[in-house]
Amino acid sequence: MSKMTENGMMSRAKVLTIDTINPTVKKVEYAVRGPIVQRAVELERELSQGMKKPFAEVIKANIGDAHAMGQQPITFFRQDAKSRACRILQSCGGHSMGAYSASQGIDSVREDVARYIERRDGGVPCDPDDIYLTTGASDGIVTMLKLLVCGEGASRTGVMISIPQYPLYSAALAELGAVQINYYLNEEKCWSLDIPELQRALDEARQYCNPRALCIINPGNPTGQVQSRKCIEDVIQFAAKERLFLMADEVYQDNVYADGCQFHSFKKVLFEMGPEYSDTVELASFHSTSKCYMGECGFRGGYMELINMDDEVKAQLTKLVSVRLCPPVPGQALMDLVVNPPQPGEPSYDNFIKERTATLSALAEKAKLTEQVLNTVQGISCNPVQGAMYSFPRITIPEKAVKEATEKGQQPDMFYCMKMLEETGICLVPGSGFGQKDGTYHFRMTILPPSDKLKILLDKVKEFHQKFTQQYS
Amino acid sequence: MSKMTENGMMSRAKVLTIDTINPTVKKVEYAVRGPIVQRAVELERELSQGMKKPFAEVIKANIGDAHAMGQQPITFFRQDAKSRACRILQSCGGHSMGAYSASQGIDSVREDVARYIERRDGGVPCDPDDIYLTTGASDGIVTMLKLLVCGEGASRTGVMISIPQYPLYSAALAELGAVQINYYLNEEKCWSLDIPELQRALDEARQYCNPRALCIINPGNPTGQVQSRKCIEDVIQFAAKERLFLMADEVYQDNVYADGCQFHSFKKVLFEMGPEYSDTVELASFHSTSKCYMGECGFRGGYMELINMDDEVKAQLTKLVSVRLCPPVPGQALMDLVVNPPQPGEPSYDNFIKERTATLSALAEKAKLTEQVLNTVQGISCNPVQGAMYSFPRITIPEKAVKEATEKGQQPDMFYCMKMLEETGICLVPGSGFGQKDGTYHFRMTILPPSDKLKILLDKVKEFHQKFTQQYS
Ligand SMILES: Cc1ncc(COP(=O)(O)O)c(C=O)c1O
Ligand SMILES: Cc1ncc(COP(=O)(O)O)c(C=O)c1O
Repeated sequence: MSKMTENGMMSRAKVLTIDTINPTVKKVEYAVRGPIVQRAVELERELSQGMKKPFAEVIKANIGDAHAMGQQPITFFRQDAKSRACRILQSCGGHSMGAYSASQGIDSVREDVARYIERRDGGVPCDPDDIYLTTGASDGIVTMLKLLVCGEGASRTGVMISIPQYPLYSAALAELGAVQINYYLNEEKCWSLDIPELQRALDEARQYCNPRALCIINPGNPTGQVQSRKCIEDVIQFAAKERLFLMADEVYQDNVYADGCQFHSFKKVLFEMGPEYSDTVELASFHSTSKCYMGECGFRGGYMELINMDDEVKAQLTKLVSVRLCPPVPGQALMDLVVNPPQPGEPSYDNFIKERTATLSALAEKAKLTEQVLNTVQGISCNPVQGAMYSFPRITIPEKAVKEATEKGQQPDMFYCMKMLEETGICLVPGSGFGQKDGTYHFRMTILPPSDKLKILLDKVKEFHQKFTQQYS
Repeated sequence: MSKMTENGMMSRAKVLTIDTINPTVKKVEYAVRGPIVQRAVELERELSQGMKKPFAEVIKANIGDAHAMGQQPITFFRQDAKSRACRILQSCGGHSMGAYSASQGIDSVREDVARYIERRDGGVPCDPDDIYLTTGASDGIVTMLKLLVCGEGASRTGVMISIPQYPLYSAALAELGAVQINYYLNEEKCWSLDIPELQRALDEARQYCNPRALCIINPGNPTGQVQSRKCIEDVIQFAAKERLFLMADEVYQDNVYADGCQFHSFKKVLFEMGPEYSDTVELASFHSTSKCYMGECGFRGGYMELINMDDEVKAQLTKLVSVRLCPPVPGQALMDLVVNPPQPGEPSYDNFIKERTATLSALAEKAKLTEQVLNTVQGISCNPVQGAMYSFPRITIPEKAVKEATEKGQQPDMFYCMKMLEETGICLVPGSGFGQKDGTYHFRMTILPPSDKLKILLDKVKEFHQKFTQQYS
């Protein structure tokens, strides 16, 4: 356990090493902030130190972080919210944001969230007791998964997630030691979710685990699809038939751009399907201050709504979240502003609507631009960005490049993205970080950079792809 | 799986029930927000609805939440921080608090934390790369424990915690399925930490698990003791000898009141012990914006410093925290203000010092008052509150009351505290929620209520205890 070093001192082996760390931690992967991003940060430092690079600036299109990409905060969330702030402070202990709140979140904020959901869903009732405020949607999702995981061996909990997925899901499942059940979205049909594929994935998984939950991201990250009402109904029917707990990640609910597409909440569709479903299907849905037109990621605000959850389980959940005391109060306050925006007649109303509309229109334009430009490149093909904030184009990687990557022990699309970063300063995330069908390659890019920068970015991607293809042909 | 109900509808058994929930979640307990507090909230609601009670107001002395108890925020943290806010915003993506930060925390904040630690520790060097900003200290503690847990059966990770403890520790260990190893603080010697007791606990635990870490809370919660330099040195020696990873919870580092007591950081003592220790002993220390003179709990700010942590483990940690994206940026900004307070000559300096001194002196007085008054009560005896924010007096509960509690299936001190709440409106936490020697009973009360309220509270506790004793004698 200890040994003498040259200078006669005792040297002790470390308690905590890579061999003695929690093995579930080692299994966790999160590509959105992986080696590519680490290298991008290094490159930025090198540039700032005056080091010569083939580009003047690193453009980060790796993460759905609107403000970091120059989107201005909506004025209302920063300046015009005095009177509302007062009301929120009234609900805080000692009337201070510096007090812990109730672990489930401030009562008045949960009430405002409930009213927001009722308006959104055309009057379907919402009980504030079913609302839990969270530290970003991430926190809510991990907490819900935590409740669901149990059993060992063939009765270990399995959770169905879409592939491609947002890697929070795979990371959380790895950490919890749950079984990840992949169902593949249909790239040929604009990343649609097909029920036969759900069935296939479930039937196979039943042979080696106990599938208990089905996660859906709508609008989709990284794939940008917006699900039809019909599809959501089918999914709910499937979940009911197969007894699966539904987890609906709806953090992009305002980010819908394509003509003919519309956001339908799982909650609303569930209630329109009548009591056979609305009284029985268990559903958790997640929202966040980080996306939509707000893009307020740094505040770590979010909520989840729990439908048909067993009361005893809810009591366990309340206990569990109390251990961490409470979600950040500034994030709760911001969530309140989001669900309770200015109303017609209020002084900030006009400006708020103007800014919100401008932000969402700009995103819609950038969504279209991204699809159009990328589809002009031979060897890149991408589905319309119907919603959310990302394009997930398929890329052709020449055999020779695949071989070179494999020799380096790298995924081919990681090799591709790393090369793009080094040569152009553009930071994308390889498709392998989200999952993809074997033998296909993708990258994810956000549509968040300002229009002029996005155009430059798309041109550079195009140029890089052509050069890369040539080089390895 | 499904059955017909009276009206002929299919009713499905729920996916998630108390019998099918993650069993580790069921094991979690967190007394600071348990049934007593839930009842206190109900009582407040009933009072506000005009229901008659034997008291006019609920006084919450259950949680270390200074602002909720009326402590005014330090002005600097709310108003005078414009120029600093600018600097922090400069370091934020898009110069907005609304952007995700680096997962480890904003660089410039980590640099400021490092300078703070160096000043605090008389120049012992601190590397910003060893600093991880967290969502309150809670988050850092749970994350560190998560890294440490592995193995099955007799090689399952064991973690040593003091009894009485802050129940975050037991809750996190239950959730992670780690083995909790109790070492008892010595109530007779002012809750001191005795090495022979550490040794006993460790030796016993080695028979059924693999002890890997030792947690210390200094100044202590719930016990209020402040450890001597000698004691800390002994603990470090013990950890070195026994190869234990040290976790030092130092969130109360400014809360030291008793004459002759002083805060010594584990880091500083470790480095004063020379390279045999400072080059080898693995140490994580935790701090928070929630305690000390700040009391800014709602922001969920905190950091941990990691000494001698293996590089590969650090890389795993960085990956792990990236899954949750980042700690709340307003909390990071507040942490920065805490470690980088006004300097002599700056306009806000005088007022800052005045407010800080006033807050800490008031706490020191209330610490003394609490000890004095409680010790006048027959059947209550309490150690001096040397530091932190709590008194943890021992109470005598008559046999008859113990019997009645047992018949109700309640811990005797839970029975006592619940009765006190119902009769007086005072909300304390039973000692059983923190752990105590078998057959002894305690409660924890904060010293945070304003002086006038604290006096009333102490008088009511005294009166209640006398009545209770009489009633059950
Ligand atoms: C689909 C999806 N869900 C959840 C999250 C988590 O966001 P946050 O924790 O910031 O609310 C993200 C963030 O990118 C996301 O894309
Ligand atoms: C000893 C101790 N550690 C950690 C914490 C966690 O505090 P926070 O998460 O608010 O920083 C507390 C809170 O009461 C505490 O008493």
